[in-house]
Amino acid sequence: MPRPDGRSHDQLRPIDYILDVAPHATASVLIAFGDTRVICAATIQDEVPRWMKMQNVQGGWLTAEYSMLPYSTLDRKDRDSSKGRPDGRSIEIQRLIGRSLRAVVDLKKLGQRTLCIDCDVLQADGGTRTASITGACIAASIAFNRLLEKGKITQQPMTKKVAAISAGVLKGETLLDLCYVEDRDADVDCNLVLTDKGDFVEIQGSGEEATFSQAELDAMLVVGRKGIAELCAIQQEAIESAMKPAQAQDLAKLAAFFGKK
Amino acid sequence: MPRPDGRSHDQLRPIDYILDVAPHATASVLIAFGDTRVICAATIQDEVPRWMKMQNVQGGWLTAEYSMLPYSTLDRKDRDSSKGRPDGRSIEIQRLIGRSLRAVVDLKKLGQRTLCIDCDVLQADGGTRTASITGACIAASIAFNRLLEKGKITQQPMTKKVAAISAGVLKGETLLDLCYVEDRDADVDCNLVLTDKGDFVEIQGSGEEATFSQAELDAMLVVGRKGIAELCAIQQEAIESAMKPAQAQDLAKLAAFFGKK
Amino acid sequence: MPRPDGRSHDQLRPIDYILDVAPHATASVLIAFGDTRVICAATIQDEVPRWMKMQNVQGGWLTAEYSMLPYSTLDRKDRDSSKGRPDGRSIEIQRLIGRSLRAVVDLKKLGQRTLCIDCDVLQADGGTRTASITGACIAASIAFNRLLEKGKITQQPMTKKVAAISAGVLKGETLLDLCYVEDRDADVDCNLVLTDKGDFVEIQGSGEEATFSQAELDAMLVVGRKGIAELCAIQQEAIESAMKPAQAQDLAKLAAFFGKK
Amino acid sequence: MPRPDGRSHDQLRPIDYILDVAPHATASVLIAFGDTRVICAATIQDEVPRWMKMQNVQGGWLTAEYSMLPYSTLDRKDRDSSKGRPDGRSIEIQRLIGRSLRAVVDLKKLGQRTLCIDCDVLQADGGTRTASITGACIAASIAFNRLLEKGKITQQPMTKKVAAISAGVLKGETLLDLCYVEDRDADVDCNLVLTDKGDFVEIQGSGEEATFSQAELDAMLVVGRKGIAELCAIQQEAIESAMKPAQAQDLAKLAAFFGKK
Amino acid sequence: MPRPDGRSHDQLRPIDYILDVAPHATASVLIAFGDTRVICAATIQDEVPRWMKMQNVQGGWLTAEYSMLPYSTLDRKDRDSSKGRPDGRSIEIQRLIGRSLRAVVDLKKLGQRTLCIDCDVLQADGGTRTASITGACIAASIAFNRLLEKGKITQQPMTKKVAAISAGVLKGETLLDLCYVEDRDADVDCNLVLTDKGDFVEIQGSGEEATFSQAELDAMLVVGRKGIAELCAIQQEAIESAMKPAQAQDLAKLAAFFGKK
Amino acid sequence: MPRPDGRSHDQLRPIDYILDVAPHATASVLIAFGDTRVICAATIQDEVPRWMKMQNVQGGWLTAEYSMLPYSTLDRKDRDSSKGRPDGRSIEIQRLIGRSLRAVVDLKKLGQRTLCIDCDVLQADGGTRTASITGACIAASIAFNRLLEKGKITQQPMTKKVAAISAGVLKGETLLDLCYVEDRDADVDCNLVLTDKGDFVEIQGSGEEATFSQAELDAMLVVGRKGIAELCAIQQEAIESAMKPAQAQDLAKLAAFFGKK
Repeated sequence: MPRPDGRSHDQLRPIDYILDVAPHATASVLIAFGDTRVICAATIQDEVPRWMKMQNVQGGWLTAEYSMLPYSTLDRKDRDSSKGRPDGRSIEIQRLIGRSLRAVVDLKKLGQRTLCIDCDVLQADGGTRTASITGACIAASIAFNRLLEKGKITQQPMTKKVAAISAGVLKGETLLDLCYVEDRDADVDCNLVLTDKGDFVEIQGSGEEATFSQAELDAMLVVGRKGIAELCAIQQEAIESAMKPAQAQDLAKLAAFFGKK
Repeated sequence: MPRPDGRSHDQLRPIDYILDVAPHATASVLIAFGDTRVICAATIQDEVPRWMKMQNVQGGWLTAEYSMLPYSTLDRKDRDSSKGRPDGRSIEIQRLIGRSLRAVVDLKKLGQRTLCIDCDVLQADGGTRTASITGACIAASIAFNRLLEKGKITQQPMTKKVAAISAGVLKGETLLDLCYVEDRDADVDCNLVLTDKGDFVEIQGSGEEATFSQAELDAMLVVGRKGIAELCAIQQEAIESAMKPAQAQDLAKLAAFFGKK
Repeated sequence: MPRPDGRSHDQLRPIDYILDVAPHATASVLIAFGDTRVICAATIQDEVPRWMKMQNVQGGWLTAEYSMLPYSTLDRKDRDSSKGRPDGRSIEIQRLIGRSLRAVVDLKKLGQRTLCIDCDVLQADGGTRTASITGACIAASIAFNRLLEKGKITQQPMTKKVAAISAGVLKGETLLDLCYVEDRDADVDCNLVLTDKGDFVEIQGSGEEATFSQAELDAMLVVGRKGIAELCAIQQEAIESAMKPAQAQDLAKLAAFFGKK
Repeated sequence: MPRPDGRSHDQLRPIDYILDVAPHATASVLIAFGDTRVICAATIQDEVPRWMKMQNVQGGWLTAEYSMLPYSTLDRKDRDSSKGRPDGRSIEIQRLIGRSLRAVVDLKKLGQRTLCIDCDVLQADGGTRTASITGACIAASIAFNRLLEKGKITQQPMTKKVAAISAGVLKGETLLDLCYVEDRDADVDCNLVLTDKGDFVEIQGSGEEATFSQAELDAMLVVGRKGIAELCAIQQEAIESAMKPAQAQDLAKLAAFFGKK
Repeated sequence: MPRPDGRSHDQLRPIDYILDVAPHATASVLIAFGDTRVICAATIQDEVPRWMKMQNVQGGWLTAEYSMLPYSTLDRKDRDSSKGRPDGRSIEIQRLIGRSLRAVVDLKKLGQRTLCIDCDVLQADGGTRTASITGACIAASIAFNRLLEKGKITQQPMTKKVAAISAGVLKGETLLDLCYVEDRDADVDCNLVLTDKGDFVEIQGSGEEATFSQAELDAMLVVGRKGIAELCAIQQEAIESAMKPAQAQDLAKLAAFFGKK
Repeated sequence: MPRPDGRSHDQLRPIDYILDVAPHATASVLIAFGDTRVICAATIQDEVPRWMKMQNVQGGWLTAEYSMLPYSTLDRKDRDSSKGRPDGRSIEIQRLIGRSLRAVVDLKKLGQRTLCIDCDVLQADGGTRTASITGACIAASIAFNRLLEKGKITQQPMTKKVAAISAGVLKGETLLDLCYVEDRDADVDCNLVLTDKGDFVEIQGSGEEATFSQAELDAMLVVGRKGIAELCAIQQEAIESAMKPAQAQDLAKLAAFFGKK
């Protein structure tokens, strides 16, 4: 059965990015997993949370916030602030983003600083949390590189890369990186968060009324590991390009990003 | 290296329970995983959430709430209501409880009803979320049995049992069901949510600054599957005993529960 | 006219208790006035509220919180935190509990500490505030005894005992300790908070569209004083038993508590 | 020992009032107990709360809100809305006001309407809750009279008057209507809410670390009943004057009210 | 076309005031623009906001809060605190009041103090924000005079007076100081905030679906400047009378204020 | 005195835009006034607010929300949702945006629909509210055109264009479109909201401790009207280009937008 956009079963959607879309952040990236687009910003603050001071915990902290912009969904989504609090799903996702990033960052090397990760979804078509984690890792890496470059820290706090992707089973076929309609129809699906070394951070079954067998997990891990490897290569390219001047192909990419060919 | 309470590496803490501690709930259980004690209550309401009516979704709904009572922790924890909102950790856990239960319940068979699961932690010593899921499954099963008994529903909505347990690696040893100090010191740990058929609902890496390899996952799954099987047997016993009169050993168990021998 | 449970007009419901149900609290008790059951916990914190420090007030503080667990009522009650604030009735009751306890505690003798009283209703059948005050006094007394035993304080801060009970007039008869249906049908009823010396803390008319005459007050005080005296005896027994090992009759009491005979 | 303002021990402070200070309310009164001044407004709304419709309760409803204006206290008090919720003391008082008024109103005779009582303290010098209840009764009575006059209702819903006053014991002397400094220094004090028939609505011990004996209660009731009788006479005069044109002495009273002689 | 109350097109409504209605404030005034009545209070606090201390900003601060009392409108308006936050309109108005006052106050001369302006609407009939600004300027001026008198400050912080008035175009005629029905029917209207020197603070188009031309602005400014000049004269009289004893005409004014003649 | 970026005194910053950055909105634009960048989205919802239904108001509604993304400022700004409510400045600005757009939209022609305007600031360098209004008008126009194109409405609801710009006086010189440092140092500045016909919506003095004379207003209006005219031309170009395919110069513009040449 062909996929809606003609991808093979273990193929990622087109992954694209624009660096430094929010120049006041220490680093930022607008990342796209197909039609899912998320602004990921990393901002360094020269202080740590009150509980760290009170408990006398050494080193720095890393925290994350996730929000869907009201116009990111097909039906407009009310702002969290109009309800007075973030919704449960947003809180769960931002805790996952924070946990995933802290799993690959040595907070001791950050000094008495906080890295704030902000993920704001501009367009949602499935996989906003996986795009957020993947983009947050890019933004955090660039932010750390800029701290190193300025001599504010002397050792790279990021010990590994972390990326995330969804996998699922739909009509018997194991699929990588589900878009919204695939996600809605899948029998089973899960979000995989892994490091570039292949170690796990989290395996989250995201389906309602669905469980998955060991065999299904193994099959989803096969396509998932392939996707994670590709994402980590793209992360590496993005991080390296952050200091370099733009090149000809960047313009074409940029034009494609906004649908102008 | 011996464990603090002398257990073998793949041994659960003593699992105990008192049924119907909150008689106004449809069913309730005070479940203990060692010193971790959680009140799990299941209440049937004869209506469904507004969004189901508006979107014309058939069947029923299942929702969960999780809260730590202020005196459940070594240092008193402020009530969520005094801060005006549940904290992020509680929201994440209650979403996990709800998702885990919905994975094994056929909501269509529930009719236009909502099953509310409430998990209130009376004493916390590690594993409050795993005790909550395990106890919630007992309370929900008994509640469904009572609906069947009264003829309000004609088919059992619970298709499988679901239980949860933690596993971790501490100084090279794979441990089952970590208590608080083990959890604090573990190199790696995760929460496993599985059905009684051995299918996965979720594998959640709970460690900060820690990831786990495929080999570690496999080892944790070995002890975890053993623990889940034992928990499912205890769930079965509890559910069956719910309709039966008390017996002599119940009294001794009860006395032990509250430290009176 | 006979009472629903056959009690005489000036008879308390069966009063029962389990000590230390929440071992992380300094002291706790699950108290039952018939089918009304409340967890009362007392937790000592080694600091005083900010306003005391700013106004340089000497001694300690005592505060109380009251909440109905969602499954304590016949129809499930939404959690305060889901509405973002405690409801007015809960706030009124927790202020009454705090005021009642502070009336019998010499805060100067507590040192720079705060005693937090938490009352969580497990099952509601009328009289949750009177059970809360009565149980809170037990928990606070035991907590103070434990502070004395550890040498943290040198003088007993509790100067008297305080207990509370409801009284009412139904079809011309003056009744003690109304259960829910009696409370609903009573022409007049009030909550009496008295010390073991017979002094008043508060007389609160709780009826809607009802007032009471001096004669009715006098009659209600007669049965109320009898009830308070009995409650104070039970408080004394509970406080004394807190340090002693369990005895044979404790097991039977425990079994009866949870409906197992 | 003389009182700060030279009153005898059982003498009220000067009680004064201006009617209809808030002309958009159905009725309103600015009432003064000495330097304590409260705006009490009664507004009729042609609907009942949602819970009454859902539970199919007949008749009307009466609700009360109490607030201290930020400039009513010697140190400016933050607005409730700036903290996002009314403080506990305000909630307790507004519940007392509502309960006191409902005790003397036959809600059935109000029809499907809600009477909203609003009490806003303009200046606080002790006794704001007793002034609020006493003024609220005036405003509610006038509002009901105006409904009767317009033929919207055919029977007077107010069955009795209700008034409130404080009494206390200071250095052995029983005092009526304590001002702030007397209230602060009193050994014992309570708020008495009684009807014009002498029946009780509530006796609230307001002191911290203070209890009162039966003898003290009896003594406080003697002065309290005297004060309540005087307040009820003033209420009657105010209610009757609401329909009548102003007279010469009203001007002098008005001038005195705002310190112009 | 005659105006509802017979005024000429460029005539203010009767402007009246009572000083020091809230004696605990440093200064206060109940100001009336016809049937619109607002309590404006100015309270001096001997501290500055946290952000000023943290940013090490010299001098004092001035802040304003605006609220409609629930009985100020024809249909009762829910309190902000019952919704947990002030409504958007109130926030906008209180920011305008604060900005208008700060435009004429030299905060450096205030020392490390905060002037809190509170405007509470007692009766609303159009122009509550213009009455608030005009009354707030009176209260602030008197408060500063009292600080000077006590020697707490040595220089007058208020450099100019500020007043506000509405102007509009209705059926081709330019009108000053619109009451509610005029405001509702006007084609165009705006709020003008000017100093007594004729300088602008703000020109706010308040109409929905309405814009105004340069010619209309010029015409509205002609009547507006006339109104502002008259308001500034009344402000001056009020400020001067604050220290003086009452006179005969004050009593008549007071009687008229409350509808007693 | 030269401006920081070398502009003449009456010259706008470079105005740039990318259309449809948020494809799930009915129309959206990322608009730049120099380094100030705002995402403006217009979303049509097929329903009107509850108050319109209850008051039986015909036609549609238009509402606006404004928020600064946390990474838009030099120091990270906490999200409104983390504080439980939008801050006062955001509320004031979103009310101005809504009022400005409603002034040029005939809501009757919109039918029973709501147009939601969302303005999220990506980068702030002065003038975020003027960029928001100007961009919101583009997004709303395109959204209406798309409704017309689909035949959902038959008449253009937008009767005029509306745009906004700041003007100020700095060291005696009248400047157009102040960037952050100019805004901070200006003696006087205001925000002008005008239609493409030159009619006023609002003139808002934005300075603290600053007022402006008639002469200054006239001078600011001269440069302001020039800026508004240029902005309206750019709005027209953007609206027309929304339906057309991309052209060569679009790519170069896009590249320049993100700093790639």
